[in-house]
Amino acid sequence: MHEHLKFKYYTKLRNMAKELTKRDENYSQWYNDLVVKADLAENSAVRGSMVIKPYGYAIWEKIQGQLDKMFKETGHVNAYFPLFIPKSFFSKEASHVEGFAKECAIVTHYRLINAENGKGVVVDETAKLEEELIVRPTSETIIWNSYKNWIQSYRDLPILINQWANVVRWEMRTRLFLRTAEFLWQEGHTAHATKEEAQDEAMKMLNVYVDFVENYLAIPSIKGDKTENERFAGALNTYTFESMMQDGKALQAGTSHFLGQNFAKAFDVKFTSKEGKEEYVWATSWGVTTRLIGALIMAHSDDNGLVLPPKIAPIHVVIVPIYNKEEQLRKISEKVTEIKRKIESKGYTVKYDGRDTYKPGWKFAEHELKGVPVRLAIGPRDLENGTVEVARRDTLQKSTHTSENIDEVIDKLLNEIQENIYKKALDFRDKNTYHVDSWEEFQDIMNNKGGFVMAHWDGTTETELKIKEETKATIRCIPFDAKPETGKCIYSGKPSKQRVLFAIAY
Amino acid sequence: MHEHLKFKYYTKLRNMAKELTKRDENYSQWYNDLVVKADLAENSAVRGSMVIKPYGYAIWEKIQGQLDKMFKETGHVNAYFPLFIPKSFFSKEASHVEGFAKECAIVTHYRLINAENGKGVVVDETAKLEEELIVRPTSETIIWNSYKNWIQSYRDLPILINQWANVVRWEMRTRLFLRTAEFLWQEGHTAHATKEEAQDEAMKMLNVYVDFVENYLAIPSIKGDKTENERFAGALNTYTFESMMQDGKALQAGTSHFLGQNFAKAFDVKFTSKEGKEEYVWATSWGVTTRLIGALIMAHSDDNGLVLPPKIAPIHVVIVPIYNKEEQLRKISEKVTEIKRKIESKGYTVKYDGRDTYKPGWKFAEHELKGVPVRLAIGPRDLENGTVEVARRDTLQKSTHTSENIDEVIDKLLNEIQENIYKKALDFRDKNTYHVDSWEEFQDIMNNKGGFVMAHWDGTTETELKIKEETKATIRCIPFDAKPETGKCIYSGKPSKQRVLFAIAY
Repeated sequence: MHEHLKFKYYTKLRNMAKELTKRDENYSQWYNDLVVKADLAENSAVRGSMVIKPYGYAIWEKIQGQLDKMFKETGHVNAYFPLFIPKSFFSKEASHVEGFAKECAIVTHYRLINAENGKGVVVDETAKLEEELIVRPTSETIIWNSYKNWIQSYRDLPILINQWANVVRWEMRTRLFLRTAEFLWQEGHTAHATKEEAQDEAMKMLNVYVDFVENYLAIPSIKGDKTENERFAGALNTYTFESMMQDGKALQAGTSHFLGQNFAKAFDVKFTSKEGKEEYVWATSWGVTTRLIGALIMAHSDDNGLVLPPKIAPIHVVIVPIYNKEEQLRKISEKVTEIKRKIESKGYTVKYDGRDTYKPGWKFAEHELKGVPVRLAIGPRDLENGTVEVARRDTLQKSTHTSENIDEVIDKLLNEIQENIYKKALDFRDKNTYHVDSWEEFQDIMNNKGGFVMAHWDGTTETELKIKEETKATIRCIPFDAKPETGKCIYSGKPSKQRVLFAIAY
Repeated sequence: MHEHLKFKYYTKLRNMAKELTKRDENYSQWYNDLVVKADLAENSAVRGSMVIKPYGYAIWEKIQGQLDKMFKETGHVNAYFPLFIPKSFFSKEASHVEGFAKECAIVTHYRLINAENGKGVVVDETAKLEEELIVRPTSETIIWNSYKNWIQSYRDLPILINQWANVVRWEMRTRLFLRTAEFLWQEGHTAHATKEEAQDEAMKMLNVYVDFVENYLAIPSIKGDKTENERFAGALNTYTFESMMQDGKALQAGTSHFLGQNFAKAFDVKFTSKEGKEEYVWATSWGVTTRLIGALIMAHSDDNGLVLPPKIAPIHVVIVPIYNKEEQLRKISEKVTEIKRKIESKGYTVKYDGRDTYKPGWKFAEHELKGVPVRLAIGPRDLENGTVEVARRDTLQKSTHTSENIDEVIDKLLNEIQENIYKKALDFRDKNTYHVDSWEEFQDIMNNKGGFVMAHWDGTTETELKIKEETKATIRCIPFDAKPETGKCIYSGKPSKQRVLFAIAY
């Protein structure tokens, strides 16, 4: 670092660090601080609904862009179904209504009129809907009601549709990105001629998610089945992937459901098979939400701010000029133009922060807070020497490089950062995952240390719920790759054939 | 055309043409038929809400992709604001509530419970919201309520934000794409330090829209000011662009508003200027909707189906194999793979329709219905001769080309089609635009012929409304490029300084 700036820089950094609660002190408060201070999102005037600010939305656009590409590469197309669902639709699939339609936003009227006292507007009581409309909490019902008209023969199958949309679930306790009344998501809804094909589809999409989450968000994941108790309302099987946050808690970032013929039966969707037989259609649905941004933040960020994996960062490289005189700035800017173009030619997004309203130290701290993976600084001495100072956000390490081949240096470094962030998260998870065989140890971990516990379970919902009651831990999944291993249930002592993954979850 | 297919093809085409109402017979029915038969959209179980089917949504994605690029190139970023707006917000800007908050979807409750009779679910009357929430008909109010906290100093300005979202307006008479209760759109909301900057922004975005609509959708547009009577509720000025449909009616596809300081005053959004003075912020908003798809259909399509400009077509080229024996198909498919790769290398989307469940004639008719700009057919004789049959959708002309340089042929042809579609629409508009100076002629055109009328107007809302009452025609805009020209109002005979554009509008 340029000597004359060090003092200013660290003073400022300390100030910013002071503003941001430390993870050790209060992890939950650190998260809330970070979301707001890094300008990702904020609470709105509407209870439980957030405003996703431009920087947060730019991350969502990166997520959307990559996932949409992956969905299309696996044969899916996008469509759009109505926001409102007639109330009666929810009663058609018995378990679905229990799981979804209860806490929701209900539209009952369609007109406002001027208040009689002349102040503002009131609901026109004469404009009452015959049947209330529910703001979609998920779209299985309205979509399968449409599929009914689209499907007659096996020739009409499969239908492989995805929808990018907003949904509303009237959550009582909300947290930015993690749990909000309204959130953005994608929901895939597919229809198939056979059970096997639908099961394969649900598994394929789980694998697409995990590919994305591991290779783009750099978050290691454990794939598995949900237990019956944790399944999606209306599903025969729910596949999930679970990730560990820095406080040892688990976060479920997305799920893929094999729905069997439940929705086809509820909405009477039949097709004539190749053999001329009439059968019910098989279904899947799968979704991920803006919650992924919450996972991204909690998995990697530190006490200085966001740490973004390069593959999902809206800005890859920021360049800050270091100067005292206008003349220096002019020369530096010329050099920056050249460097910027070079790095951009490798497909990266580069921002030149030439604002004269802020000092370099302030800018350094801001870009660290915002998680820009690489920061370049160029001062008069760098110009003389043909060098650039390179700082990486993940390790905060700095080094000096010649500006000539800076594009190659940056390209290599960004790949290294992507890998390093993943590796760090994986090491953290491994260090905080325990194979536990005694109930005392299980309680100790859940109450004091936090982390993932692989333990035996007797397979009953009863035991699952008791464990949750006593420790708040739930079965996150029955991992696909768990080895068959006989043992005794951690709680009941009854026999068990494999370990399952327990954790306290978001 | 291959002789042996001609009969089958035309038989089928006649059948499809029969199904699609002709424009001459019933333009409105033709439009409805086309939207449904080309698989673009359909009505849903929710009154006034449509399902946008995959092919229709693919067009929307093309529109979104290009507009989003243009917004970003002009310095805008995306964000996301809540779906729900507290009722009281609408009363804050006096004219806004009159224009918008009346016919809307109102959320009054947040919970359903099982019905006492055991059948279905009913609204939980105890879960009533203290203040009703309105499903956004447009987002000025909720956004300016957020901007209040974002803006303190001139340094925080300008804010150049766009949002892609769904909105709801409780329309009584709805038509697919043209007017639906829920629709998709983008809404730009910008905040500026000066009046001039805000006015420039509103004009800049109008020009972005017109650039897009003319050069991508191939629809000629007339830019101008809205009259006071037709202005957006809350705007000081509304810029519009108006296009002619094939029935001579006008369609307003988007608008850009200079909002002055109205919303800043309503939500108390002030900033400290460079000079240290406290001032209200200046605003614009601008939007286009899924209505653009309606315009696209009505401007170019014909009695055989959609005609899509190549720059907005989801599929540019479809290739249909013509064969009798499996062995022929195998050889043709090999050749197609080569041709497909060649054309794709020019950046075009090519679909090989190798389905064995349909005859070529059926496929030809289907791809015409769906407006694929270019269709290639390859049969055994083509293989022998090294040729391909090329059919263009806009003129329905066919020609034969050697397959060797087919990529260049297609590239040239697609550009020609794009230009030709625009030119055809422009010629049509010119032919149906009249300079009218007598009230009799004005009435005759509006009642019998249809078209655009450039006529003098005395500048009063009173006259404007009377003309509407008597002819259904409205002032679409006061064109920017109209020459100053003294004359007498077509209706009142009072003096006028320039002609304005009248038409019956969608």
